[in-house]
Amino acid sequence: MTRVDDDGLICYSGGVFRTMESTMTKPIRVAVTGAAGQIGYSLIFSIAAGDMLGPDQPVILQLVELPVAMQALEGVGMELDDCAFPLLHSIELADDPMQGFKGADVVMLVGAKPRGAGQDRSDLIKSNGPIFTGQGEAIDAVAADDAKIIVVGNPCNTNALIAQSRAKRIPKKNFTAMTRLDQNRAVGQIARKAGVAPADVHDVFVWGNHSDTMVPDVSLGTVRTGSGTKSVVEAVSADWLGGDFDKTVRTRGKAIIVARGKSSAASAAMSAVNHIHDWFLGTGESKITSMAVPSDGSYGIPEGLIYSFPVKITAPWQYEIVRDLKVDDATKTRMMASAKELEEERAAVADLL
Amino acid sequence: MTRVDDDGLICYSGGVFRTMESTMTKPIRVAVTGAAGQIGYSLIFSIAAGDMLGPDQPVILQLVELPVAMQALEGVGMELDDCAFPLLHSIELADDPMQGFKGADVVMLVGAKPRGAGQDRSDLIKSNGPIFTGQGEAIDAVAADDAKIIVVGNPCNTNALIAQSRAKRIPKKNFTAMTRLDQNRAVGQIARKAGVAPADVHDVFVWGNHSDTMVPDVSLGTVRTGSGTKSVVEAVSADWLGGDFDKTVRTRGKAIIVARGKSSAASAAMSAVNHIHDWFLGTGESKITSMAVPSDGSYGIPEGLIYSFPVKITAPWQYEIVRDLKVDDATKTRMMASAKELEEERAAVADLL
Repeated sequence: MTRVDDDGLICYSGGVFRTMESTMTKPIRVAVTGAAGQIGYSLIFSIAAGDMLGPDQPVILQLVELPVAMQALEGVGMELDDCAFPLLHSIELADDPMQGFKGADVVMLVGAKPRGAGQDRSDLIKSNGPIFTGQGEAIDAVAADDAKIIVVGNPCNTNALIAQSRAKRIPKKNFTAMTRLDQNRAVGQIARKAGVAPADVHDVFVWGNHSDTMVPDVSLGTVRTGSGTKSVVEAVSADWLGGDFDKTVRTRGKAIIVARGKSSAASAAMSAVNHIHDWFLGTGESKITSMAVPSDGSYGIPEGLIYSFPVKITAPWQYEIVRDLKVDDATKTRMMASAKELEEERAAVADLL
Repeated sequence: MTRVDDDGLICYSGGVFRTMESTMTKPIRVAVTGAAGQIGYSLIFSIAAGDMLGPDQPVILQLVELPVAMQALEGVGMELDDCAFPLLHSIELADDPMQGFKGADVVMLVGAKPRGAGQDRSDLIKSNGPIFTGQGEAIDAVAADDAKIIVVGNPCNTNALIAQSRAKRIPKKNFTAMTRLDQNRAVGQIARKAGVAPADVHDVFVWGNHSDTMVPDVSLGTVRTGSGTKSVVEAVSADWLGGDFDKTVRTRGKAIIVARGKSSAASAAMSAVNHIHDWFLGTGESKITSMAVPSDGSYGIPEGLIYSFPVKITAPWQYEIVRDLKVDDATKTRMMASAKELEEERAAVADLL
């Protein structure tokens, strides 16, 4: 497309013209903890670029770090300024969630002690739990009434439960944890195996805890190929699905640590962006997505556990657990095992709830 | 927007539906060096997310690293898979540019020895130069005939000159270096000072070398406020423009290193994304942007130097240097000093050209 400017110069723009809406739409306040950490550093630039809340939605970033990391966070803030992001309304930095969560519409709890090489999630439960009591209290005290929360810091399901228990003012169902990374890993594996782009794989999801007890589920999954759309179970072999696929998805976090020497950062950040994007803007061509949300007792999962279900987005910031799916016995057994693990995690932090 | 699926379920999607174009549009091949490095790690996920080439353009990422970094690069490749990016057609990893640049439509030369605390750009010229002879030769041998090149690794202007000299097959004007980060820094400073969003500041640019001799120029710059659009010189004080503003923009790289303990990464990556985005898709609401491109002798800048000019994008992958701007004497003096620095850099690497 070409256009003629006031001064008669012809300008070319093949993209969408940046609109003046950025000065008119009310900004959304997004608080992020661990903002100077590995995941945070990938996440916040993606948010500011509009990947999470859409290309017309201004955002205020409220970045929270530990006091010891505030100088690094200042540097990150300078870099955000230096990007001149059209949608970035303003930036606030805080070393206290009571300040950093003020008025936040979206709270992304990313900061946590990372899992090192050789460590597993269960080692983290006790050390990370107390962080989330304080953050839950800060959400209760100062966040927006209808704040939406995603917990990324592990063990994320149980950390979400802890934060939720300290924030009675906020609707319980607004507390979610991230299993979208697991779903994305499953989609990536299937796309590669089927020889299609990830855009051609839909409606794969995961049940349960974000741990190696999670249950990838392809029963609703589809693959679009040159010759039409098939179910995942038609497109790839049952042996692979029950073997390498399942194991790869469940243990991918550890494999990344082995390869990179650090835990997943950018892929975790992009998945957090996907989680919030879809919660707000819908799932596009997919009918469902995975979110760990408070169980309502569906499928026999104990009520209140933060458990990954297939959900449908029915309106901005509204999700519904997909009910009445037919689940085979083997899957059901594994779903209950993952629920049992979450009950044990809940018991381990009972003094914090 | 809501829609009714085949099975009668109502789905919500407030965003644009992901289109099937991703399976129909020919992918663009983008080669990136230093892909597992700090800037690369921010850059490639942003490319895969569609920030650089637009939301409907599939991409093939050809990631290049030193042999010693290939294991880390494998991990990055795994994380890219794990994001299930709809636009990411495929990924190729290589430890040799002769393989990694094969058929590349866009070549982003990011890898270089980073500038450490206390070091300045001139220390890098001799150590980084030889990297770019080999990469220029690989571009000449295997990249697409009309490949577009951006050099990010410093000293980027002179590195671009070196690569260009070894790639006679490729049009000279396709070799560019990144000064968009400097422009973005200038815009960010003005937005903050004027109390507007960066989206409201346009047509600020920089002349010269990506070094502290660069010349930020606000003579065409505008600021949109609640009460209308003003020139930058009306919106902020001349004292500030000639003082803190100028100095902050020119020395920002060092200030970031002091704050973060590392050089700019995400902001450099986002600026590289902006550079290629605008070259391909136009400058949107802005009339011009900054690119370091081969001088055609305009403004008395010696022909052939890779020098930052204000450019207009006239069609996809077509830029034109904006000629015949009125330049005041003080600015002209500084522009020539920056050109002189680039002539000295060229002399220092004469044996490589």
